[in-house]
Amino acid sequence: MMRAVLALLLVLFNAPLLAAPMLRGTGDLGLVIERASGSVLIVDTTHHTRIARVEGLGDISHASVVYSRDERYAFVFGRDGGLTKIDMLEQRIVKRIIQAGNSIGGAISDDGTLIAVSNYEPGGVRVFDTETLDPVADLPATYGDGKALSKTVGLVDIPGRAFVFSLWDAGETWIADFSEGNAPKITRLKDVGTNPYDGLVTGNGRHYIAGLFGEDGLSHIDLWAATPEPAKILAGYRKNDPAMPVYKMPHLEGWAEADGLFVLPAIGRNEVLLLDDRTFAEAGSIPVHGQPVFAMARPDGRQVWVNFAPPNNDTIQVIDVPSQKVVATLKPGPAVLHMEFAPRGHEVWMSVRDADEIQVWNTRTLEKVATLSAMKPSGIFFTARAHRTGL
Amino acid sequence: MMRAVLALLLVLFNAPLLAAPMLRGTGDLGLVIERASGSVLIVDTTHHTRIARVEGLGDISHASVVYSRDERYAFVFGRDGGLTKIDMLEQRIVKRIIQAGNSIGGAISDDGTLIAVSNYEPGGVRVFDTETLDPVADLPATYGDGKALSKTVGLVDIPGRAFVFSLWDAGETWIADFSEGNAPKITRLKDVGTNPYDGLVTGNGRHYIAGLFGEDGLSHIDLWAATPEPAKILAGYRKNDPAMPVYKMPHLEGWAEADGLFVLPAIGRNEVLLLDDRTFAEAGSIPVHGQPVFAMARPDGRQVWVNFAPPNNDTIQVIDVPSQKVVATLKPGPAVLHMEFAPRGHEVWMSVRDADEIQVWNTRTLEKVATLSAMKPSGIFFTARAHRTGL
Repeated sequence: MMRAVLALLLVLFNAPLLAAPMLRGTGDLGLVIERASGSVLIVDTTHHTRIARVEGLGDISHASVVYSRDERYAFVFGRDGGLTKIDMLEQRIVKRIIQAGNSIGGAISDDGTLIAVSNYEPGGVRVFDTETLDPVADLPATYGDGKALSKTVGLVDIPGRAFVFSLWDAGETWIADFSEGNAPKITRLKDVGTNPYDGLVTGNGRHYIAGLFGEDGLSHIDLWAATPEPAKILAGYRKNDPAMPVYKMPHLEGWAEADGLFVLPAIGRNEVLLLDDRTFAEAGSIPVHGQPVFAMARPDGRQVWVNFAPPNNDTIQVIDVPSQKVVATLKPGPAVLHMEFAPRGHEVWMSVRDADEIQVWNTRTLEKVATLSAMKPSGIFFTARAHRTGL
Repeated sequence: MMRAVLALLLVLFNAPLLAAPMLRGTGDLGLVIERASGSVLIVDTTHHTRIARVEGLGDISHASVVYSRDERYAFVFGRDGGLTKIDMLEQRIVKRIIQAGNSIGGAISDDGTLIAVSNYEPGGVRVFDTETLDPVADLPATYGDGKALSKTVGLVDIPGRAFVFSLWDAGETWIADFSEGNAPKITRLKDVGTNPYDGLVTGNGRHYIAGLFGEDGLSHIDLWAATPEPAKILAGYRKNDPAMPVYKMPHLEGWAEADGLFVLPAIGRNEVLLLDDRTFAEAGSIPVHGQPVFAMARPDGRQVWVNFAPPNNDTIQVIDVPSQKVVATLKPGPAVLHMEFAPRGHEVWMSVRDADEIQVWNTRTLEKVATLSAMKPSGIFFTARAHRTGL
């Protein structure tokens, strides 16, 4: 009898017991990309622990992640065109599609219903339903004679069920507005500059800034304007430069807004640049240890943490924003690729790829408080991103 | 056999089945205060549904709520000194203590480990462990001869495991810094003004502003200063006023920061005031329908929604921040007491107390999209608050 009951229990509850779905809150979870192995780690940011590894995500070099508004599901954008939906509680892939041949990042709409993916091949943006990953809209990035397709970059969400992205080949920025339904209204802004390579939007969804690979400066668009228009900012900031080689293009995702300033990594120069956050005029620069890759503001904006391109990628510098001074130079280890702050900023997590480690640092004492093992970790993404615009 | 198995299953799984703990994310949950019945509703903000009612919270007039950093547990601060910890997934009270005789609001530390409660009787702040609700620290608000205790108000969290609050009777603001452990370092700032009645801190934890009941103006403290000092702002803004009766003191929790301005409800006047967010100088005012109670910014700062004191509390006005104009006057119904925006602002929830309704409005179309029944609802608090400073 008892054996029969146990057998029945095993049949009934086997899957949940083995897959260990957890009754727990999801606000303090995160994902760490392990790109060499095509896997991700689910982590608990309160207890500094690893919960599970999920495998089978394909090529996730340069991968990024957004979250459903309930913070249960992660959407991982792979380099191979893969879009993978992960259940953080059941620790498994819910669905995985190959939606293009080559892609770079994505975004989730403010109401949580749409996932947009930025594709290189075929050039354009594809939009999917977050519940099912069924296709909702296909936006080929046509330009010129209308036959060629541009690679798309710098895809962000903005309020009003809309997305903004830029066309590398066309030098355009598009606004795709899904507020009236799943057939979007597209606004094409031309002449944003030569070869936009990445973009960001400010936390309020107002200012879109594209980095330009093909010219010396950046493009700024005020999305609140009645007729948004691109304007060049920081034009010529590299004009005095002795053509220093660029070791790695800085990431714009990490740009920091702090204390009335934007702090951003300079391209190919050992400094971060300061922009006035109202006028977008250059407001100075701060010399740093190497070529910056990410310049990320602690959520309160009082500090900016910077990592660097090779050969200086074993180092992190901490800038005190009010005094505009580097106040600490840390050496976490070889290949510090990415950082993610706790939502209220008391700690920061960082990937130290070549040490196969995730490190957690206290942002006040500047001391390391925990180390977790990970296989060649790169990007770190916490579920709190679900509640923020433009990530 | 089957009956025996079912009986065993019932024994084994009865509690979970009946209490219905849900395997689900917690990022899109919220609580609605039903003060007349001492109960709270747990709501799902994605599907606009009620999940459960939890009863037995005592006197929750003027109650407020903070959340654990995993967004699973709510801490409800009652008027009767009650501090109640609710499990949002198991939909039950985990623990409830009466920590004082009369209290008003509370806060949770940035690392999620400490809950602080602001008390009228006995005057002071008490601090508890978030896991157990065991006492951690007691901060009697002594002043004058050191024997009297002041009521405390305007309690907020700031970065660095610290809290700020004001002393109604003493006209002081205190900073309690728990960064070195559970015996806090207290900094007392004197002469902040006569009878501070509420306080707020800006979203970055930098600027603390206290409303003054006893004089015409407000107090501002820059907490980033090497030596924080109170400074009077908006002094004399009511000096031309024909002593209009004040129907309800405005809440400072709802002050809005938007587009370089703070937007705040004027005391006893039918207008909202604008402050420059760098200089704290008055930057104008906007006439509105009645005496404002809350002036709350949509998360992108492009709109501010205002509700009003009786007899105008059936009305909501929407201000377009860039143009500084009222663009809509809505009539949700009798006694609109509180509003809460979805984290990325696409919707706003409001309590319409005397219609026993919660209404959900689309903030772009300004149309009502859902109605939920509730018993005399007042405050609405979403779990996304877990990730924000100063709420």
